[in-house]
Amino acid sequence: MSKIQNVYDDNSFFKEYKSMRESKINANELIEIPIMKGMLPEIKGKKVLDLGCGDGCMSRYFAEKGASQVLALDISENMIAEAEKQTTYSNVKYDIMAMEDLNKIQDKFDIVFSSLAFHYIEDFGKLMNDISNLLNKGGILIFSQEHPLVTASVPSKDIPKYIEKNGKRIFSLSDYNILGERKFDWNVDGVVKYHRNFSTVINSIISAGMNVKEVKESYASEEAVKLVPKYIYQKDRPYFMFVKAEKI
Amino acid sequence: MSKIQNVYDDNSFFKEYKSMRESKINANELIEIPIMKGMLPEIKGKKVLDLGCGDGCMSRYFAEKGASQVLALDISENMIAEAEKQTTYSNVKYDIMAMEDLNKIQDKFDIVFSSLAFHYIEDFGKLMNDISNLLNKGGILIFSQEHPLVTASVPSKDIPKYIEKNGKRIFSLSDYNILGERKFDWNVDGVVKYHRNFSTVINSIISAGMNVKEVKESYASEEAVKLVPKYIYQKDRPYFMFVKAEKI
Repeated sequence: MSKIQNVYDDNSFFKEYKSMRESKINANELIEIPIMKGMLPEIKGKKVLDLGCGDGCMSRYFAEKGASQVLALDISENMIAEAEKQTTYSNVKYDIMAMEDLNKIQDKFDIVFSSLAFHYIEDFGKLMNDISNLLNKGGILIFSQEHPLVTASVPSKDIPKYIEKNGKRIFSLSDYNILGERKFDWNVDGVVKYHRNFSTVINSIISAGMNVKEVKESYASEEAVKLVPKYIYQKDRPYFMFVKAEKI
Repeated sequence: MSKIQNVYDDNSFFKEYKSMRESKINANELIEIPIMKGMLPEIKGKKVLDLGCGDGCMSRYFAEKGASQVLALDISENMIAEAEKQTTYSNVKYDIMAMEDLNKIQDKFDIVFSSLAFHYIEDFGKLMNDISNLLNKGGILIFSQEHPLVTASVPSKDIPKYIEKNGKRIFSLSDYNILGERKFDWNVDGVVKYHRNFSTVINSIISAGMNVKEVKESYASEEAVKLVPKYIYQKDRPYFMFVKAEKI
């Protein structure tokens, strides 16, 4: 059985996810996207590959910023249909493709971008190698993923996500150095994510022939915390990790 | 008041520490040193700087492996006296110096090494800049430090280090993204360490003009767990983090 997962084509998942994203009051809009945009290199004139493009919101952003060409891929037909509906730029092309099949692309890019999709991929080393092969020399990989401190421990009856003590949240941590599959209940039951510790992420990038240029861990702005008070706990356990790397 | 700390010249600390290290059944001997040795580059003919050399055990190792010269520094008079007592190699030189004063050294090295000392230093950015200045082009920095998951939360009445559930240890995590001073009770009360998250460690290295080559997070071998059963919990929350970087 294939390990490739396509939860975004599960209709009840897709409905929940779409309504969460449309509300604009979510961690993507308030935390993740602002940090990602702050890490982007110059886009003007660049050829961009957007992996796990979802509804295409960042593909359109790259087109607005003057990208010469954007190839945006997603495994989900639902997502690609949504992206095509919303996009008017002629230099943005969408395709349905699993990230496991990247080695089939015969092209080179200046920027490979991916927002919150890599934690669905089982073989991170292969993914980094495939991306490195798709980058021009000096090209930039920039991605976000769920933070290793989030994917390490799956909450359960025995392991609560956190406990509250005197108004403080203390998160549970276990299994951090045990890499591999995790099943989370998120919109639907049993969404599979792959936990990698920090060193595995960094070493896989380096082994694939890229230099790490910057790492970020998510934090919430004061405005975000005003809108969603629980985002204050980003200071205790960040949701997301971000990496920028350069092809040698 | 100076923020430079020299707990190893506190006599009751030194006595406890010395007896712990001499027992050879400790996390340094069983976990940290084997991983560090596995990350070392070729030593033969190299000029090595050993920062926070303690009793000089690694300085002697470098001499045995053919280093052309070893300069070994520690802030503690106790430690340097101990190191000199134990060392017979003429090309190993010891000096009492705080790591905060590294910019006073007028020399260049091929390898800068440091075992479990950097978490005592407040200004990590300055430390990385000073080390980068001391490295020849292509030179290697290799260090271990307490893992960010250990320095993040100080155990207290409100925050136990861990709870046990069905024979499993679930560690407490809070304040991960709040950087700075932490006071731990270790051998004596109130030992000050500085917590930095992963991204701060990595970005400081890169900003100082070095490329990260490898990161490791500690794990315990089967033999180590046989000797000290609690080392099994390295898989839940590693004690140490290791970084190898190269001067550009």
